[in-house]
Amino acid sequence: MFKGDRTTPPLTVMGLMSGTSVDGVDACLARFALESGQLRYEIIATHSQTMPAELRERLLRCMADKQIHLQEFCRLNVEVGTLFAETAWALMQTHHITAAEIDAIGSHGQTLYHWPPSQSGQLGGTLQIGEPSLIAEKTGVLTIADFRPRDMAAGGHGAPLVCFADQLLFQHEAMGRCIQNIGGIANVTVVPSLADAQQKHLPVIAFDTGPGNMLMDAAMDHFFSKAYDADGAVAASGQVHAGLLAHLLSHPYLGQCPPKTTGRELFGAPYFQQLLSQFAEIAPADWVATLNRFTAASIVDAYQRFVFPRYAVSELVVGGGGSFNPVLLENLRALFAEQKQPVPKQSILVKTHAQFGIPDQYKEALAFALLAWANVEGIPNNIPTCTGAQHAVIMGKRVT
Amino acid sequence: MFKGDRTTPPLTVMGLMSGTSVDGVDACLARFALESGQLRYEIIATHSQTMPAELRERLLRCMADKQIHLQEFCRLNVEVGTLFAETAWALMQTHHITAAEIDAIGSHGQTLYHWPPSQSGQLGGTLQIGEPSLIAEKTGVLTIADFRPRDMAAGGHGAPLVCFADQLLFQHEAMGRCIQNIGGIANVTVVPSLADAQQKHLPVIAFDTGPGNMLMDAAMDHFFSKAYDADGAVAASGQVHAGLLAHLLSHPYLGQCPPKTTGRELFGAPYFQQLLSQFAEIAPADWVATLNRFTAASIVDAYQRFVFPRYAVSELVVGGGGSFNPVLLENLRALFAEQKQPVPKQSILVKTHAQFGIPDQYKEALAFALLAWANVEGIPNNIPTCTGAQHAVIMGKRVT
Repeated sequence: MFKGDRTTPPLTVMGLMSGTSVDGVDACLARFALESGQLRYEIIATHSQTMPAELRERLLRCMADKQIHLQEFCRLNVEVGTLFAETAWALMQTHHITAAEIDAIGSHGQTLYHWPPSQSGQLGGTLQIGEPSLIAEKTGVLTIADFRPRDMAAGGHGAPLVCFADQLLFQHEAMGRCIQNIGGIANVTVVPSLADAQQKHLPVIAFDTGPGNMLMDAAMDHFFSKAYDADGAVAASGQVHAGLLAHLLSHPYLGQCPPKTTGRELFGAPYFQQLLSQFAEIAPADWVATLNRFTAASIVDAYQRFVFPRYAVSELVVGGGGSFNPVLLENLRALFAEQKQPVPKQSILVKTHAQFGIPDQYKEALAFALLAWANVEGIPNNIPTCTGAQHAVIMGKRVT
Repeated sequence: MFKGDRTTPPLTVMGLMSGTSVDGVDACLARFALESGQLRYEIIATHSQTMPAELRERLLRCMADKQIHLQEFCRLNVEVGTLFAETAWALMQTHHITAAEIDAIGSHGQTLYHWPPSQSGQLGGTLQIGEPSLIAEKTGVLTIADFRPRDMAAGGHGAPLVCFADQLLFQHEAMGRCIQNIGGIANVTVVPSLADAQQKHLPVIAFDTGPGNMLMDAAMDHFFSKAYDADGAVAASGQVHAGLLAHLLSHPYLGQCPPKTTGRELFGAPYFQQLLSQFAEIAPADWVATLNRFTAASIVDAYQRFVFPRYAVSELVVGGGGSFNPVLLENLRALFAEQKQPVPKQSILVKTHAQFGIPDQYKEALAFALLAWANVEGIPNNIPTCTGAQHAVIMGKRVT
């Protein structure tokens, strides 16, 4: 996978992550080494810490206002940094691991704002807080943080970054894989087989396939005042409504060519409300069943349009909250089994991260451990075919 | 000066600085090496670039409002970073220096806000912008930036940082030196002789002595609508008013023990207006002459109270705008010559940075080159006795 079939001695690196839900910090300690260019890894320990309610409220307020007092900015940077530092420290204490046993810590920080580059070539900017100096001070470990700006300085979007980990963790000699994250929005990293990458020069690509749990969650909230459909129980009790499904599948986002990203603007509550007024007669459980099927169908549809024509794919590795919804996984399996022509029909196994020994909750923390590991090894860790950067760079700022 | 009398091969490092006046970026390229623990340095090239008026206005507005939209934050970070990158690049182009010839760039960035630690031990925070990734991308040189947070993570004020350069540039085997910067506010770094540092364990200390050019400039603006007293011409034409001088010398700040800092709150325009109403009869040139003498006297007074009782000082090295005012330098010389007892009278030479081969405009840029050099060499670059940090750290975040 790496030029020259490099072999590197094992390094032990911790990744720290707090996502857009701002509910806590996840830490994952892992050991990484290259053997003849192939990544070997082992997860050593994980730990998570809840975001204090008061701090969470201030962060969400700032994100909603998109405006901040400079002193509050400094305070949040220090308080989030302290929380990250405490999470790293707690992992070390809990597992009796000393600073001398850890080579580096990679911290994503907390995103407050992301201003993507314009199509005309104007560079974008991004704002992650959580002062890494506090992590270095508390743990005594080299800390690498603020990864996105380096990719953006090279003209990239500074996202997605996890595709680097997807390639290292999942690239197989002979099998192509789609690493499908199903959070609020669903996004895929297409990792060609090593053979295809080398012989056909197929790049790793990544894009948002469409809604993840967002529409199902909106229906659960509306009809059942619940945050989500636990274990897919409601979807399992309902019937798919063919008219609604056909309407959903006509959404113009599905036909757009990658690279593409989407969010709450397209598939959030207003869209669900509009659907509700158009399909007033459908029973609540049928809504959830149909939206579940649509979510799976939008993923399979994206592959048929944009992935299968170029990539031979043997496995789908599902992650995010959606990977805990057995009805969604079943829908994916069923839809792959009944794929439409003319694209060559592919026989695809649907797996979860857990089947690869990666706890779903810690996937992103593991990804930031890997990004930091690459920084230490001097290995470029952005994927220009995913971020749009003009060239490969080594992302991350080092603090000792 | 450094433990083990280290010797290091020469490194070529560029420093980039934009100060509180936000009028431009100064770049200074220098070569540094340790010979048996002593710094050897040579300034290779300097360059400066004016801050575009529109960008300056937006930065000053943000500092005045102490409030910012997150997108404007991202934009300013990118635009200031681009300006820093262009300044570094222009120095390289002008002097035909390639990336391969430069080992590192140290960038201070532009301070937007500084939130000092509380006396009760609550950590402070700070906010410097000017994305260093853009400097690394444009120049292809390892860039080290955002120095202050690491000192603050160790409980320090993240300031002053230049005292590290003052020690390396000016510490003498046998002579104690005061490095006196006279900007709007005047501040000193007291650098004991190497002999005193080693035998008496005298630390480097730094504090604000009081007003720098601030009061003189206020009088020049009020009476003559000029920004400052060029060459001290107005002061030279006036007489010192004994009553006003005595009143000024009774200012309580002068008696406060270091560490201490001051600013526009104490010695700004409101204070000058108050003086004006108390001493309405004094002629304009006499105002300027008296404020010039007071500025010098407040510096000498600070040394007599807080420096001379412990430190043997042979030389004063003046920097900042005040070093271009010959009347101010003459006042300093005269006041040192007529020092009061009981403190041992010291015979002090008043020199400028130029006499040491350091162009005054580039002193701070040179200081940030030195801070970056130390980061590369793994040498701690904060001075805890100046910043208040609990221990020495290596400041700066590295981007490649």
